[in-house]
Amino acid sequence: MLSPLPSARAMVPFVSVGNMMRLVHHLGVETVLAELTDAVEADFRRWESFDKTPRVASHSRTGVIELMPTSDGTIYGFKYVNGHPRNIAAGLQTVTAFGLLAEVATGYPVLLSEMTILTALRTAATSAMAARHLAPRGTRIMAMIGNGAQAEFQALAMKAVCGIDTVRLYDVDPDATRKTMRNLAGSGLRTFACASAQDAIEGAGIITTCTADKQFATILTDNMVGPGVHINAIGGDCPGKTELHRDVLRRSDVFVEYPPQTRIEGEIQQMAPDFPVTELWQVVTGAAPGRRDPRQITLFDSVGFAVEDFSALRYVRERLAGTDFYETLDMIADPDDPRDLFGMLQRAKAATR
Amino acid sequence: MLSPLPSARAMVPFVSVGNMMRLVHHLGVETVLAELTDAVEADFRRWESFDKTPRVASHSRTGVIELMPTSDGTIYGFKYVNGHPRNIAAGLQTVTAFGLLAEVATGYPVLLSEMTILTALRTAATSAMAARHLAPRGTRIMAMIGNGAQAEFQALAMKAVCGIDTVRLYDVDPDATRKTMRNLAGSGLRTFACASAQDAIEGAGIITTCTADKQFATILTDNMVGPGVHINAIGGDCPGKTELHRDVLRRSDVFVEYPPQTRIEGEIQQMAPDFPVTELWQVVTGAAPGRRDPRQITLFDSVGFAVEDFSALRYVRERLAGTDFYETLDMIADPDDPRDLFGMLQRAKAATR
Repeated sequence: MLSPLPSARAMVPFVSVGNMMRLVHHLGVETVLAELTDAVEADFRRWESFDKTPRVASHSRTGVIELMPTSDGTIYGFKYVNGHPRNIAAGLQTVTAFGLLAEVATGYPVLLSEMTILTALRTAATSAMAARHLAPRGTRIMAMIGNGAQAEFQALAMKAVCGIDTVRLYDVDPDATRKTMRNLAGSGLRTFACASAQDAIEGAGIITTCTADKQFATILTDNMVGPGVHINAIGGDCPGKTELHRDVLRRSDVFVEYPPQTRIEGEIQQMAPDFPVTELWQVVTGAAPGRRDPRQITLFDSVGFAVEDFSALRYVRERLAGTDFYETLDMIADPDDPRDLFGMLQRAKAATR
Repeated sequence: MLSPLPSARAMVPFVSVGNMMRLVHHLGVETVLAELTDAVEADFRRWESFDKTPRVASHSRTGVIELMPTSDGTIYGFKYVNGHPRNIAAGLQTVTAFGLLAEVATGYPVLLSEMTILTALRTAATSAMAARHLAPRGTRIMAMIGNGAQAEFQALAMKAVCGIDTVRLYDVDPDATRKTMRNLAGSGLRTFACASAQDAIEGAGIITTCTADKQFATILTDNMVGPGVHINAIGGDCPGKTELHRDVLRRSDVFVEYPPQTRIEGEIQQMAPDFPVTELWQVVTGAAPGRRDPRQITLFDSVGFAVEDFSALRYVRERLAGTDFYETLDMIADPDDPRDLFGMLQRAKAATR
């Protein structure tokens, strides 16, 4: 008996923006950030089991659209993500994203999800994971330079994972800082609006930069940065976009996700191709040292890597089980006889008459 | 006033499998195939305006998952597609796909669509476009070797675009041939079940091969192929998967979509890297000759290229206008203030209380 209805495998669970927000609130934002940090770390621990490739970027005058695939041999994942700094002026997000997981064995998708919110969460979780290994012990104060869409997620992840209790905020636009302070009110974090980047980093053990201009910028110059800090540089994430003066890089021990991608997109695009870096996964496994010295400057030159999105999508998939925070999409044509795609099409005609 | 509802830009039109089938029947299968052929040809005519890159493949023991991006500078598109020959044994499709269009200027998606059915249609349309330029004049008979999911689409496209009235069918599995004959009954095509590939190509001016094994096969050997035919080789579409004996290639003038991809994935992976080929878009624009001689053997070594999917998605987007053959997905997080992603998340919590 040939059924006109799609099979279970033809239906793909889809997490909309609305459902992602419901899921996050159901679990609690800080819980999600802490659990995601562990999920990302678990995948960094098995880094070598991933099929890794630099993302596939399509650049235009206004921005970039990227596809970020990876696989652990059992599950395949990819993210679609754009980066359009000028979108803000038009009232649009600079970064929007969605992602997919599929079974390697069959190629059938098993999850489609919004990833604008999820990328914000996983970026903060990855920063927190790096800081857990690299930040000076006992740090309670972070500086957050660039108070855009990522700022609150960064602050809450550093609170949940690293014990940060104070956030010193700076943005070229004071409205952005006010927005961040308003959103963090009631979070348990003490927040301070600072008059400059220099002011913001005063006393901070973790300095996070996350600005959005697509250009070579110097948010931090060498004379600003004292010893014994961990810098988390997020905003420099594509060719031609950096945030730190190269002299800061020279004084720091630099940690990266995936060197072939970071050398093109990260802060170290300013440096020679053999500029020494440590792969973060090696710190996680213990194969390479993290922080060796309280006076050392550690720098996580973060550009975002496909494995982190994979971790985030798998985490969402696990957490969805038993909830109703998803719809199912009739996305895969799956006729009863796989060779009879045309017959399925014909029967659909009969069914709609 | 901050709205808890997603903006219009946050909602992405989605064409499910069910709606794709409704759209196709609303327009008529042959009309879609003919119009798609013109749409693909129009984009081949402006081939040089596309950002082209070989697809990004993730290979496993059982198959391949690929991402196929392209852009014309205004619209960006990509397709997710798998190829898992052994899926048939499990009752699954060997090829499933979905695709997306986005605005280059903002990176915001504007269409998400199933592409399993659409890929079948665009593959047939691309074959018909090639045959329109390359097949011997007055051909009324085609041979269809491999009677799987693609067979009926190929036959109907060749009917609609090239005036084929007779299809000679062969498959190693007679059930597949019976399925194809059953589906083509009432189409106006005369169909014949043939006992062998040799038998099927008897008198045919267009010979289409579309078999699914992931291995080096020789569906056509040199002594089988007479002069004055056009061969449309579809099944050889990834490394290690070919259908024709190399001697057939040597006697043919070979036309391809995008040489960097075809030399790795197509029939010509069997030949030297400098084996002469003609790019099909040059035939379409008149920059290179198509068929020059009635006795010539022309061969379209088709592997499927991102531009064809782009054409197909754009065609669907145009044809959707004014219909209700789509849903909208809340896929893009789009807060009123683009920097206030976290605030949107917070307000959603309040809204669901």
